[in-house]
Amino acid sequence: MNLNKNYAELKESYLFSEVAKKVNAFQVANPDKKVIRMGIGDVTLPLAETVIKALHKAVDEMGAAETFRGYGPEQGYDFLRTAIKNYYAQSGAELDIDEIFVSDGAKSDIGNITDLFSKNNTVLIPDPVYPVYVDTNIMNGRKIIYMDGTAENGFLPMPDKNIKADIIYLCSPNNPTGACYTKAQLEEWVAYALENNALILFDSAYESFVSDKELPRSIYTVKDAKKCAIEFCSLSKTAGFTGLRCGYTIVPKAIESDGMSLNKMWLRRQTTKFNGVPYIVQRAAEAVFSADGISETRSMVAHYKQNAQIMAKTMEETGTRFFGGIDSPYIWFECPFGMDSWKFFDFMLEKIAVVGTPGAGFGKNGNNFFRLTAFNSKENTVEAMERFKTLF
Amino acid sequence: MNLNKNYAELKESYLFSEVAKKVNAFQVANPDKKVIRMGIGDVTLPLAETVIKALHKAVDEMGAAETFRGYGPEQGYDFLRTAIKNYYAQSGAELDIDEIFVSDGAKSDIGNITDLFSKNNTVLIPDPVYPVYVDTNIMNGRKIIYMDGTAENGFLPMPDKNIKADIIYLCSPNNPTGACYTKAQLEEWVAYALENNALILFDSAYESFVSDKELPRSIYTVKDAKKCAIEFCSLSKTAGFTGLRCGYTIVPKAIESDGMSLNKMWLRRQTTKFNGVPYIVQRAAEAVFSADGISETRSMVAHYKQNAQIMAKTMEETGTRFFGGIDSPYIWFECPFGMDSWKFFDFMLEKIAVVGTPGAGFGKNGNNFFRLTAFNSKENTVEAMERFKTLF
Repeated sequence: MNLNKNYAELKESYLFSEVAKKVNAFQVANPDKKVIRMGIGDVTLPLAETVIKALHKAVDEMGAAETFRGYGPEQGYDFLRTAIKNYYAQSGAELDIDEIFVSDGAKSDIGNITDLFSKNNTVLIPDPVYPVYVDTNIMNGRKIIYMDGTAENGFLPMPDKNIKADIIYLCSPNNPTGACYTKAQLEEWVAYALENNALILFDSAYESFVSDKELPRSIYTVKDAKKCAIEFCSLSKTAGFTGLRCGYTIVPKAIESDGMSLNKMWLRRQTTKFNGVPYIVQRAAEAVFSADGISETRSMVAHYKQNAQIMAKTMEETGTRFFGGIDSPYIWFECPFGMDSWKFFDFMLEKIAVVGTPGAGFGKNGNNFFRLTAFNSKENTVEAMERFKTLF
Repeated sequence: MNLNKNYAELKESYLFSEVAKKVNAFQVANPDKKVIRMGIGDVTLPLAETVIKALHKAVDEMGAAETFRGYGPEQGYDFLRTAIKNYYAQSGAELDIDEIFVSDGAKSDIGNITDLFSKNNTVLIPDPVYPVYVDTNIMNGRKIIYMDGTAENGFLPMPDKNIKADIIYLCSPNNPTGACYTKAQLEEWVAYALENNALILFDSAYESFVSDKELPRSIYTVKDAKKCAIEFCSLSKTAGFTGLRCGYTIVPKAIESDGMSLNKMWLRRQTTKFNGVPYIVQRAAEAVFSADGISETRSMVAHYKQNAQIMAKTMEETGTRFFGGIDSPYIWFECPFGMDSWKFFDFMLEKIAVVGTPGAGFGKNGNNFFRLTAFNSKENTVEAMERFKTLF
């Protein structure tokens, strides 16, 4: 057989394994010290009560002949697609139910969507960035251009008319920087995409952290975005579904190129290479969008946002320049004392036993930055920040 | 953007929608007639008691802070991979735990595995066939050669030394024909693959229906198969997981080409484009492999096999030539009265109100054949076969 040689071009990522190795070594050398981990972007609170109830009910249905469900529609049950449609309507985005595809998570769909594009596309990706955007395009051998996210542009790069891109990745609120595009900024991106016959792949996984009513939680609140943007979202951060696995992707019917409909192509891709999300998980997801589900999951998000606020306040008090932390679970700060991000990682671990993620792991523009996450208990967050102040 | 033009080469499949349309029209015209549906390959029995218990327990864990689980390993939890390893050991196949990848179903992995191959491969696919093998390769623009499954070779095509293939799809017990390769036949395929540096993609989704101890339930019971074969399996038919979604793919570490390891490539593909199977579903899958789980799910399979036997007996009594029905939930029979498969579909629906699947839907060699499935109640199966006899 002949293998896909593009795989040989992938860089091995040692980020999280290197972090784990260093933390383990520290813990062995300092068995009495309590290490506080603020590195991984994974939720810590258990699933909401309403979600657990829905799961138990659906499990019982699967155990009785009259209510058992076998294969479901690959694109998701209508009960869940309707709930998602109504959720979008609340933000002012009108979707047709056929534009909504239920998935096992945003990561899968962000990777698999590349099936629909030819190799011959120039891909525009921000730096720093969630590594999946880069790796999935290297796997297909596409040309990648990076756009710089820097302190100067608030880690929110804007279109450059001199660059002709075919596919553009945007993530807002951003992972890893926590920065969030304004509506006016997204309007500029939509205008650029329409002018260049480009497609925007919009990752809104952190939309539930947006409290500021002026900030868009979906790109479809921008006029004409349905002509040029696919949106990926997930219940991982909205409702703590990282271990339960459910997301959704919006592929508007208006997006066409060369007479081919992206919506029809994605439907064909999913019906051929996917068999849908477990029925019981879809019932759990439906429960997230119920009145009780919204209320319970929003208070989970509020818990994380309170942690983010505690961190943001500490950054202000210590005079540390930072981004995010308001409409996002991430704080992205400039490493103090002129250190680079790995040096600061070692310094912070050694001095105060707090673990974060070196910005260098997200691209060259992260070399002097550092990510902390709000996914923790309030107690740990307060303690970590008290320790952080002692560095100064 | 530039789209993947290969999608325009895909044929629309009207098989099941055409069947549904005809059945609906018949039911509207004949509201009093009880239609018996033996067309779709989906299980009908609810999940086993042990599986339901495991699901409830895991759901409770997800609702409590101390036992909640977020992101798991993309390739599956070790508790499940160990259970699968032990299950294979019982058939005499030794696997390393790192060779086992837990997935959301065989269909996803059979589709996604094509990511690892370059366009430049000749793919050998049987006809009749499960359409996913064909469509996923058309999406990648690969050259496909068909090998004929016919009554003469028992719908079990064997290697042709004059044909040079790079990737070979085998499904045993077969969908749609129910035919099952012997160990000697699989040895020939393995020898052919090794001689041609070819890869076998072995679909064993129906392995649990094999009762004959001489017939292989895994290709790894054949010597050296671990050097040239990837095996896909699923709990869909083994344990009725069509709506719960869990399968597994075996990628042996010994398979290499051009210095690249397929096992490492698949690990990289899955960690980049997949986020694992829900924790609660993995606990349910683990329960399938427990002593109670094996016993309960085997009796579900026995129920379907009894239906298959009832159908096989009817075929014998009516002098209808058939395949499968012994180590498989499918009966594949030659259409009586010299009819082609769509003509016989209409005839059977009109005369006896029984629905099956026209063989033409699986390829040209199915034009004069017909598939019935054992996924039904015994009562319905008996009644359908009583009606079938009246045709003669």
